[in-house]
Amino acid sequence: MAGSSFGKLFKISTWGESHGEALGVVIDGCPAGIPLHAKDIQQDLDRRKPGQSPFSTPRNEPDKVEILSGVFEGKTTGTPISLMVRNTNQRSYDYTEISKLYRPGHADYTYNMKYGFRDYRGGGRSSGRETTARVAAGAVAKKILQELGVQIMAYTLSIGPISIDKDHFDPKEIYANFLGMPDPIAAKEAAAFLEDQKKKDDSTGGVIECQVHGLPAGIGEPVFEKLDAVLARALFSIGAVKGVEFGAGFAASTMSGSENNDFFHMTKEGKLTKLTNHAGGIMGGISDGFPIECRIAFKPTPSIYAPQKTVNTDGENVDIQVEGRHDPIIVPRAVIVVESMVALTLVDYLFQNVLSRMETIKKAFK
Amino acid sequence: MAGSSFGKLFKISTWGESHGEALGVVIDGCPAGIPLHAKDIQQDLDRRKPGQSPFSTPRNEPDKVEILSGVFEGKTTGTPISLMVRNTNQRSYDYTEISKLYRPGHADYTYNMKYGFRDYRGGGRSSGRETTARVAAGAVAKKILQELGVQIMAYTLSIGPISIDKDHFDPKEIYANFLGMPDPIAAKEAAAFLEDQKKKDDSTGGVIECQVHGLPAGIGEPVFEKLDAVLARALFSIGAVKGVEFGAGFAASTMSGSENNDFFHMTKEGKLTKLTNHAGGIMGGISDGFPIECRIAFKPTPSIYAPQKTVNTDGENVDIQVEGRHDPIIVPRAVIVVESMVALTLVDYLFQNVLSRMETIKKAFK
Amino acid sequence: MAGSSFGKLFKISTWGESHGEALGVVIDGCPAGIPLHAKDIQQDLDRRKPGQSPFSTPRNEPDKVEILSGVFEGKTTGTPISLMVRNTNQRSYDYTEISKLYRPGHADYTYNMKYGFRDYRGGGRSSGRETTARVAAGAVAKKILQELGVQIMAYTLSIGPISIDKDHFDPKEIYANFLGMPDPIAAKEAAAFLEDQKKKDDSTGGVIECQVHGLPAGIGEPVFEKLDAVLARALFSIGAVKGVEFGAGFAASTMSGSENNDFFHMTKEGKLTKLTNHAGGIMGGISDGFPIECRIAFKPTPSIYAPQKTVNTDGENVDIQVEGRHDPIIVPRAVIVVESMVALTLVDYLFQNVLSRMETIKKAFK
Amino acid sequence: MAGSSFGKLFKISTWGESHGEALGVVIDGCPAGIPLHAKDIQQDLDRRKPGQSPFSTPRNEPDKVEILSGVFEGKTTGTPISLMVRNTNQRSYDYTEISKLYRPGHADYTYNMKYGFRDYRGGGRSSGRETTARVAAGAVAKKILQELGVQIMAYTLSIGPISIDKDHFDPKEIYANFLGMPDPIAAKEAAAFLEDQKKKDDSTGGVIECQVHGLPAGIGEPVFEKLDAVLARALFSIGAVKGVEFGAGFAASTMSGSENNDFFHMTKEGKLTKLTNHAGGIMGGISDGFPIECRIAFKPTPSIYAPQKTVNTDGENVDIQVEGRHDPIIVPRAVIVVESMVALTLVDYLFQNVLSRMETIKKAFK
Repeated sequence: MAGSSFGKLFKISTWGESHGEALGVVIDGCPAGIPLHAKDIQQDLDRRKPGQSPFSTPRNEPDKVEILSGVFEGKTTGTPISLMVRNTNQRSYDYTEISKLYRPGHADYTYNMKYGFRDYRGGGRSSGRETTARVAAGAVAKKILQELGVQIMAYTLSIGPISIDKDHFDPKEIYANFLGMPDPIAAKEAAAFLEDQKKKDDSTGGVIECQVHGLPAGIGEPVFEKLDAVLARALFSIGAVKGVEFGAGFAASTMSGSENNDFFHMTKEGKLTKLTNHAGGIMGGISDGFPIECRIAFKPTPSIYAPQKTVNTDGENVDIQVEGRHDPIIVPRAVIVVESMVALTLVDYLFQNVLSRMETIKKAFK
Repeated sequence: MAGSSFGKLFKISTWGESHGEALGVVIDGCPAGIPLHAKDIQQDLDRRKPGQSPFSTPRNEPDKVEILSGVFEGKTTGTPISLMVRNTNQRSYDYTEISKLYRPGHADYTYNMKYGFRDYRGGGRSSGRETTARVAAGAVAKKILQELGVQIMAYTLSIGPISIDKDHFDPKEIYANFLGMPDPIAAKEAAAFLEDQKKKDDSTGGVIECQVHGLPAGIGEPVFEKLDAVLARALFSIGAVKGVEFGAGFAASTMSGSENNDFFHMTKEGKLTKLTNHAGGIMGGISDGFPIECRIAFKPTPSIYAPQKTVNTDGENVDIQVEGRHDPIIVPRAVIVVESMVALTLVDYLFQNVLSRMETIKKAFK
Repeated sequence: MAGSSFGKLFKISTWGESHGEALGVVIDGCPAGIPLHAKDIQQDLDRRKPGQSPFSTPRNEPDKVEILSGVFEGKTTGTPISLMVRNTNQRSYDYTEISKLYRPGHADYTYNMKYGFRDYRGGGRSSGRETTARVAAGAVAKKILQELGVQIMAYTLSIGPISIDKDHFDPKEIYANFLGMPDPIAAKEAAAFLEDQKKKDDSTGGVIECQVHGLPAGIGEPVFEKLDAVLARALFSIGAVKGVEFGAGFAASTMSGSENNDFFHMTKEGKLTKLTNHAGGIMGGISDGFPIECRIAFKPTPSIYAPQKTVNTDGENVDIQVEGRHDPIIVPRAVIVVESMVALTLVDYLFQNVLSRMETIKKAFK
Repeated sequence: MAGSSFGKLFKISTWGESHGEALGVVIDGCPAGIPLHAKDIQQDLDRRKPGQSPFSTPRNEPDKVEILSGVFEGKTTGTPISLMVRNTNQRSYDYTEISKLYRPGHADYTYNMKYGFRDYRGGGRSSGRETTARVAAGAVAKKILQELGVQIMAYTLSIGPISIDKDHFDPKEIYANFLGMPDPIAAKEAAAFLEDQKKKDDSTGGVIECQVHGLPAGIGEPVFEKLDAVLARALFSIGAVKGVEFGAGFAASTMSGSENNDFFHMTKEGKLTKLTNHAGGIMGGISDGFPIECRIAFKPTPSIYAPQKTVNTDGENVDIQVEGRHDPIIVPRAVIVVESMVALTLVDYLFQNVLSRMETIKKAFK
């Protein structure tokens, strides 16, 4: 069914397979009057694109975006924005063998169970390449957030067993190293760890942390569309995500109420503040004006060169060694995907909040 | 905005405040022909209702459900089912003071920021009492799951620092002890821990685990409505949830691919199986026919008798001591709420999957 | 499936059967801060309720509305508003015979085909009594329109062959005569015509016209949610409607472009106007700031005392004479239903239009 | 806002402007396993494309469709289907003048009011060219209807004052004459009438009739998604439509109940039939298994060469003579658009009906 659409007001519909003609997205519900150029989108696509580090697939794709509609004289017109990225590096590869196997850790088996067959070329629709369209749409969402003063910052918190040290936190490092880690020392250790995994024909997982600054209080729609609920859905929709937590997260389950409650406090300057942010910026499903903070756990890349056991479509036990172009870690390339999904969600719920009070609506009609 | 609706095909719309006239739900999209009686719903409401343990609020509510429409001669008719539970034990309490304070850990501040004011009686719409309507609707969803052979089992995995020992796992215990813990030894320890918290006028958090058995492969709608994504949204929509993980969850982030991948295997009886279930029963966002497994972290009850610091609506720093009827833990009562949200989600996506293949649709029209 | 929900932002979910416990509606998405009292709703319900004229069913129902949630201290809180009207005059009637017949002109046959069986008491969900809930919700929508300066005026344009004379148009008459006709002379003729139909144990149809004044330009969402398209859907959702037209309507099909085009003109006072309004206030699916004008054709009441031929559920040809309480015309009571559906639609699309331009959104966040 | 999406289960999202790069559609929710080739779509696009008769615009567009995703080895995969048609004949035309005028009968004024500015090249998004994407999506919907045995037949019922004579009804003529009229004599008269309008630099309107055969009973979702309601919305979403009626339509308003009611009758062969079809195949918003019949009134083409009066964006009264490529009638080219919108709607509600009964759902899971 219709699972490739996202958003209620700022609605996107993505399409495309790993080895099809192209990938793209239609954005329906972008307001008129936002300056938009291909380069605004390209810069985010460039952060996602393959072949940029020793730890990402060498698939060589320029991933150039085309704006096909919805923009006129450099501004959005309020009509649907269609964005497309052509696939140019589909290798003429023999997929006969893989078409008959269920790769461990992949969606081969479940797609076959659901649809009766599947486009097995490079994972088809279940490939991480699908996120290209999300990043393109996310870049448009970020333009809107920028107009509203909201910033999203995601980064690699840990790779396998190596975590950043918050005392060394340096946001500039996010863009400076291959791994998106805001701690140059941890980044170096993680690189060494990855080299090792690569040598073993193996892969690893990791955790991404995401912070949102500048989001006004009031965003989120209880009771089923609490801000954390809709963000969690957005984040779990990224392939390979196995866990999401906000603020104190799982640790809150072992805290007492008196420890976990964030106490409000008026500063001498008359500004309301909180003494802690265990809530991660969301109370009762509504943003409280303090930074949103969440962590997203990614499983290791399932495609590894190491030999594995599996079953084929004829129901026979077989050995498998997955050929192709594998990333030993997908976390660094997923950082921009996390940002994109958070951006798409925030725009949708910022828009919804415009309609929360009658007085705001009346103001809009003046 | 419209955040109290849930589901696309099996759609519910809940309403009601803690101290209003009543709470209820309209179910729009329930198929015709399902046997349904008030007692089917009442038994789940009874699991949720207050006053059943030394660790739950003594608020005395019978929580009797009325079926107001959509059922005729003991069967659902295909038209909307309206369920209502009257509030009978709203205390004539003086809310003047609380109406002017932002209680730490509560949604008082965010509701005021969003809507300009709030129904402050007992938390209004942000009260846990709102889940009554979810449980009522969930009971109807479970009737459908029953017809399709799907079982949901949730239980308390841990309370504060005390976790169950999986070697002592006994499902009968879930219903036998106050705490919903399937391990009588851990339950006893947890009870002692809670007594202690209560004496300190404090509260604690905990973790609920949920397993789904009998779900066919193929459920979930990539790419944005992956089964884990929509379940996560459903679970995070429950107040006090701070983290959700599936299968190996956060631990997967430190595993290598060769460890984490679930290997397929054909048994001698010719049945496809998996050697592990790190995926938690979901691959590429689609159920794989193996048990769904997830864990949900709850923060401690924010209402505690211990004195706290906060700010009032006049912007002054004040001391607060929250009067009223507090649970030192909400986890045991949330077990049935978790089951309900999982049930509501599964029905919706089971229904959607009926439309995944043209051959199934043709069969339906024969 | 879920067909009893209406609206995207101002979302309603109605429920209830003709002879069930009650009828009601949940409004999810009503902004906070709107003054609302039961009497605001009751006055519209009173316009719809039966037993008010010699030409409406003598069913004696007070149709008293209860506000069960979403309103606090006389104002909407932004949370769902639940409204309920108890059925009090279900006659203990023997439905055995009717349960086995397909009444001509009714939905008996189609409900059985769709759902396998039906609540046959008084038409169940397919009864006109279902519109009670729409009128209750519509009254809330009108409160919002009032805040935005929008007025809706519907009236009976014709009953059977008798139409109003626009030269005698008098809006006060809409409320002054039983028939909602803004022309006292036509109303008198129509009453005589209806008396005659009643004597013949027969019924008649008619046309309602609806005008909207004060709607700003810009409302409607091309291309699939053009304002006329969504209004038409809303109007055709009322039982017994067989045709809808806007502005020149069907007559436009025989006009030439030079006749039909509305020419724009600047008045001496510098106000943009149109020399005609063949478009009925909508151009390209968007309101143009001039009055919306549409006409809605209703079929005659299908329930008549006159003997008819039909088929029973055993597949036998039988004679039928429909007992019960029949209106010889439903048009006058449908006037308020038309107003309600138009109000619900306009609120939804007024809200959507707040998000059409980035500059408006930015203003809302200031 | 998001008005370019249509459908709940078989969901489409269209995009593109008259003089932009391309037009297209993403279909999200197409079941897997349907044979689909570009030629299936091309044949419907060819029926819509310009330049095929003396009465259609000479714009020369091949309108070749590309399938960019969702089809693998000649069958739909269940993932989104992206279809695109490049614009190739955008004339390098000077739009300076037209950009400053509000053309009578066009959406220029309302787009400016809504969005603040507009893509004025050839009408931008409000151009009839937008329907290209609908026809492409409709062709896919028709493939599904074909699998379910449902046929749609639309045709020109009248052009200006000239209507077909139902005694001369010949369905082969629909495809045989330029005007889509199933009556060769009327078609000849209409052609002469159009020649005359063309000479006068004027245009005319007309009526399309649409019949659906083979639709099973039970389709449509009361109370707000009655089949006639959702079809009406779909039809009114086509530019230039001013009226829609089903079965007896507006004429039903002057009939008596005894005339208008369709009597059920069992034939000697034991088949349930109706003696008349004034209902147009829909009772209580649900298909009754008899032919759906509706009529759609189109206004005359607003673009005419004849001089007209209007206002410019500076608020001055001006004369206007619309240059460009005008059809003196759009009805014949709209026939396939009507078929497409009906097809898209029927597929969506056929799918929804699969979920009406629990027994059907259980059958699907076997």
